[in-house]
Amino acid sequence: MLSLPSTPPPKSKILVFGAGNFGSCLADHLGNSDHEVFMWSREARFVEYFNKHQRNPDYLKDHEFSTNIRVVGPEIPSKEMMKQMDVLLFAIPTQGVRETLIKLQHSLDRANLPLMIFVNKGIETDTQALTLEIIADTCGSEIARAATFISGPSFAKEIVRRQPTSVSVASLTESQAKKASEIFHQPWFRCYTGSDPIGLELAGALKNVYAIATGLADGLGFENNTRAGLITRGLAEMTRIGTAYGASPLTFLGLAGVGDLFLTCSSPTSRNYTVGYRLGKGEPLEDIIETLGSVAEGVTTVKGLKKIIDEMQVSAPLANGIYALLYEGKDLHEGIQELMCRPPSRELDLPEKAGEPAKRLMQKLGLDA
Amino acid sequence: MLSLPSTPPPKSKILVFGAGNFGSCLADHLGNSDHEVFMWSREARFVEYFNKHQRNPDYLKDHEFSTNIRVVGPEIPSKEMMKQMDVLLFAIPTQGVRETLIKLQHSLDRANLPLMIFVNKGIETDTQALTLEIIADTCGSEIARAATFISGPSFAKEIVRRQPTSVSVASLTESQAKKASEIFHQPWFRCYTGSDPIGLELAGALKNVYAIATGLADGLGFENNTRAGLITRGLAEMTRIGTAYGASPLTFLGLAGVGDLFLTCSSPTSRNYTVGYRLGKGEPLEDIIETLGSVAEGVTTVKGLKKIIDEMQVSAPLANGIYALLYEGKDLHEGIQELMCRPPSRELDLPEKAGEPAKRLMQKLGLDA
Repeated sequence: MLSLPSTPPPKSKILVFGAGNFGSCLADHLGNSDHEVFMWSREARFVEYFNKHQRNPDYLKDHEFSTNIRVVGPEIPSKEMMKQMDVLLFAIPTQGVRETLIKLQHSLDRANLPLMIFVNKGIETDTQALTLEIIADTCGSEIARAATFISGPSFAKEIVRRQPTSVSVASLTESQAKKASEIFHQPWFRCYTGSDPIGLELAGALKNVYAIATGLADGLGFENNTRAGLITRGLAEMTRIGTAYGASPLTFLGLAGVGDLFLTCSSPTSRNYTVGYRLGKGEPLEDIIETLGSVAEGVTTVKGLKKIIDEMQVSAPLANGIYALLYEGKDLHEGIQELMCRPPSRELDLPEKAGEPAKRLMQKLGLDA
Repeated sequence: MLSLPSTPPPKSKILVFGAGNFGSCLADHLGNSDHEVFMWSREARFVEYFNKHQRNPDYLKDHEFSTNIRVVGPEIPSKEMMKQMDVLLFAIPTQGVRETLIKLQHSLDRANLPLMIFVNKGIETDTQALTLEIIADTCGSEIARAATFISGPSFAKEIVRRQPTSVSVASLTESQAKKASEIFHQPWFRCYTGSDPIGLELAGALKNVYAIATGLADGLGFENNTRAGLITRGLAEMTRIGTAYGASPLTFLGLAGVGDLFLTCSSPTSRNYTVGYRLGKGEPLEDIIETLGSVAEGVTTVKGLKKIIDEMQVSAPLANGIYALLYEGKDLHEGIQELMCRPPSRELDLPEKAGEPAKRLMQKLGLDA
């Protein structure tokens, strides 16, 4: 079945920033789709190893990567090189996007802009900014308006094995999303386009918080009804927060919303789910973080989320509960009792007055008409 | 944690029609919430056994039921008995609702109507009618407008063990949904109200078709990305069909939608999922149905659904694929290739012109203003 012929996309020159798990799996997918792929790494060791062995020394180690990939670096790509690219794909952590774009923006050929695609998830910790805003701050509103975002349920290790995968591709300029989709789309990598990058970004960041909650319930020994109910109530809360922010509630029904939430909450290998699960088993957070090696994204995201929730005064008992548990010393069982003893309510109470944060962002992007 | 005190609801007299798996677990929940519960069975053997042992001889056999339940029957409850009831709870299969309501409707005290709650899922096979329409046909539009529907991720065996469970409660008359919610709501049985019974009913029926699709993918050996993508694309399709019918797309984000879909698709004990899984492993449908003992709901529902899809001319490649596989001798691998080779598309393409079936139903209910 997976010997389906690839659809011939317009052959593009693509520069991938970030050679981690997700960046390199996408580079591989693009290389196998007959694009000419350059992948930037800032580590000389990595550049040498990959170009010699066509393997990633740090991630997906068993995989032999497409021969259409060449790794460049460790110096940041030159203006001349950037000029030749049709696509710049950013697969770096959200906390590094601002710094990278500040370095790169002088090298962008504004008369002939490449398609810029971002696959990072999360909120910038210090500012609570979405990537869309970081792009506007560093590269200007024109580039932000054309920027395209990809998100969805997509484990890297399954993508390199051509397990059928589906993703959301969104941009404020929907024609750009369509272009990105044509570059990525294959029978085993299906792209669905949309025009709500704010919703897509929020869903990708927030889902990690609700994955912690789901892991927690599983760690405590709750069963299927609780799990399905909790994921759904988490989704309702994400949708309420997203709508209050200014996203479309329907974006949360999509691959970047429900889809990625399902995947994250169903996978014992998800770091966020694991944090919750082990908290549910009674381990202290410090011990869990120590063994995990680094902080799971949801643990950081909930801090920025808490500020957003408080500013917008939107009802978010689950996120508030996770915040109180992680940062205010709240007793787990007391927190659960409080959640369970809430009175009955309407199911999808979307805020009537909504969209202030998105309106401010749209103004920054020159889209306040 | 589950020793939480029950909230004292207004004590009600409740008559439950149907003593199966789901009916008896709800009777138990209501009995344990201090209501006075009568459960009707048409089998003399059942009446005698339950009232002697306070156990269900056929389902949840290990469970000792609430002493607040008394089983009545096998004759259909008398007008006098019905008159005393605050609530009639219907937990009978959809295919039996019309017949039961025809028998009962003469006994309803129209001057002092009890709250009527329905928990069956599915479409009437011969007519493609929703239960809302069956109620209008048999009891009149006034009773249908006040009827209340409960749906959501809720395995009976977990409800009787007080595993925290959350459900959607919807009625065209939202005050009735609120009343039903007050009767059912407990810390471990959380009710969320809404006003879209059409969406709730469609979601409950359609999810079984998409559970077959998910089981199929798992049976074929696809992994996590595919599973999460398929559930999400199934949800998008359910939402598109529901919206074309006249439901609110947001209902599909709720417990009766995503929640129940997720539960059904995640459970190897779900009959619909199992049908798909075994088809994916290469077993012929007849063999599967023979071993299962009866037809899984989704296998029947997809027939009525196909008629609805064709009438509304809505795009539904997954449901059409399942229909072709089950009833048109379509080759499984060919069907999957066709699905995978579809071109990229917009993610949530809701129909522009929508709602004809719901409009006709609303006219029947006297709500066409």
